[in-house]
Amino acid sequence: MVTNVDKNLVIGIDIGGTGTKIGLVDARGEILARDEGIATTAYSTFDGFVDAMSEVIERLLTATDSHGKVRGIGVGAPDSNYYTGNIEHAFNLPWKGVLPLADMLSKRCNIPVYVTNDANAAAIGEMTYGTAKGMKNFIVITLGTGVGSGIVINGQVVYGNDGFAGELGHVTMVRGDNGRLCGCGRRGCLEAYCSATGVARTAKEIIEQMNEPGLLSNIKNITARDVYNAAMNGDKTALEIFNFTGNMLGEAIADFIAFSSPQAIILFGGLTRAGDLLLEPIKKSVDKNVLHTYKGKVQILISQLKDSDAAILGASALAWE
Amino acid sequence: MVTNVDKNLVIGIDIGGTGTKIGLVDARGEILARDEGIATTAYSTFDGFVDAMSEVIERLLTATDSHGKVRGIGVGAPDSNYYTGNIEHAFNLPWKGVLPLADMLSKRCNIPVYVTNDANAAAIGEMTYGTAKGMKNFIVITLGTGVGSGIVINGQVVYGNDGFAGELGHVTMVRGDNGRLCGCGRRGCLEAYCSATGVARTAKEIIEQMNEPGLLSNIKNITARDVYNAAMNGDKTALEIFNFTGNMLGEAIADFIAFSSPQAIILFGGLTRAGDLLLEPIKKSVDKNVLHTYKGKVQILISQLKDSDAAILGASALAWE
Repeated sequence: MVTNVDKNLVIGIDIGGTGTKIGLVDARGEILARDEGIATTAYSTFDGFVDAMSEVIERLLTATDSHGKVRGIGVGAPDSNYYTGNIEHAFNLPWKGVLPLADMLSKRCNIPVYVTNDANAAAIGEMTYGTAKGMKNFIVITLGTGVGSGIVINGQVVYGNDGFAGELGHVTMVRGDNGRLCGCGRRGCLEAYCSATGVARTAKEIIEQMNEPGLLSNIKNITARDVYNAAMNGDKTALEIFNFTGNMLGEAIADFIAFSSPQAIILFGGLTRAGDLLLEPIKKSVDKNVLHTYKGKVQILISQLKDSDAAILGASALAWE
Repeated sequence: MVTNVDKNLVIGIDIGGTGTKIGLVDARGEILARDEGIATTAYSTFDGFVDAMSEVIERLLTATDSHGKVRGIGVGAPDSNYYTGNIEHAFNLPWKGVLPLADMLSKRCNIPVYVTNDANAAAIGEMTYGTAKGMKNFIVITLGTGVGSGIVINGQVVYGNDGFAGELGHVTMVRGDNGRLCGCGRRGCLEAYCSATGVARTAKEIIEQMNEPGLLSNIKNITARDVYNAAMNGDKTALEIFNFTGNMLGEAIADFIAFSSPQAIILFGGLTRAGDLLLEPIKKSVDKNVLHTYKGKVQILISQLKDSDAAILGASALAWE
């Protein structure tokens, strides 16, 4: 008979707008087997998509002889609700309405399924395998296509009254009509400035303002990666773009600190590859903007989880809880 | 022998910059005996002040024959730390440095002492005796001389890593050099606009801008109470002052909601006497500014604790925890 003690593996699933990754993970955060071959957009029905995921899981379990050893499946998915296990009205997924993900997948696989959004999954991943090991109070800020957050207080992820707490990408940084239009339909959100796409918008603005010949001058449709490459080569305009971004992130973080007085802020996601180019202006700005009570108390860190694995690890960690 | 079960009373102490109030409270939130006669500023040493408090406590216990029936003493005090029981570097108190309040008072009275700031005490008071009974996720915003906050998540007050979490009066609402100078030394804080003194500053600005003869035209050193009186008499300028204040509070609350997705925001303190004059523009502004995910989900309420008792009740509730 297999008891829960023998169930020393978990499965992590990262559902993204383009692709879905699945991995089998052990207690030390090693990925024993993985599959990154599911194209999220290839399935016209959610039912078909859940079938595809369960087939991949079956294949991973067979390949590693792990049937009966999996304690749970953790899923990171956009607009998903930890309390209900549903994905609710996700903008970036092909299926509309309320999708009972946990219910459907657990019935297919006969394994408990837990879901939350990718930023909360990242926070649990950091706490379980990463930089936040042993921390009880911290905030993960994900800097990717969008800006998300996973807030941990007293060792617990904050889900709030409805399961959707922690949308710190949508605090308002620039009030009034001058604020940039955000994907959420409002103006001036942090995400409209400090996501990868926000950095590209900043680049456009600052290149026009500075009007200085440089490495970015002749690039059409500039991306955050172009800005990074130029900054690494000492380009003045590119450095100014990172300063602007870091400064605003620091202003936002100073406000977040006044909320939960965390031990650390952990930055996660694609944009953090910029390293000190981003981290230094953030630290400077936090120090300048934070209330004296908190000055010098809060660490600003970059996630140490391997970029390619972080999403799977984060999701998988949900299943240990 | 007296067991903890027989200890069905608590003491609440509200230490303010001017006066200190002490009350003996039962489990239903009835104040059985009270003393509001301690002038905080009358004691040159903290030691003398603690002596005075313990004498009052002794007197209240004797008068009500309650020796041995008190489970604990809860104290609301500025800049106080729940974890350490200390008051640390309080601006508004006559004694400097770190003051080991819980330690000193518990030794004098032989009763456990718990301390926190007044806004956290208000949050616990609301949860124990007030509007937040049964709620697990809510935020109390205190609107008095300053703006404070007590944040409750999963039924627990958020103290953060250092015991000083929840300084939402010091999130930045107006960035840059145009932001009003705040008592904390920074610019643009919510407190500089939406405290009673902030409202008085707004009054001055709006009276100049509107330059319309009205009930406020000839008052020197306008207070929030003057604005209230004028607004109740339909004065256009005064109504505009409340609209401005409510609008900014709504913008701030929309950001707070994105953090912890609470069931309710509860407004507490002197400024809430304005009732719908303040509540209506706040509700309108929250609805306009909040992320669609949270729209219509969060109640905006005014505390129902009796104003004169609220501070004592809030502090006393700390001792039941």
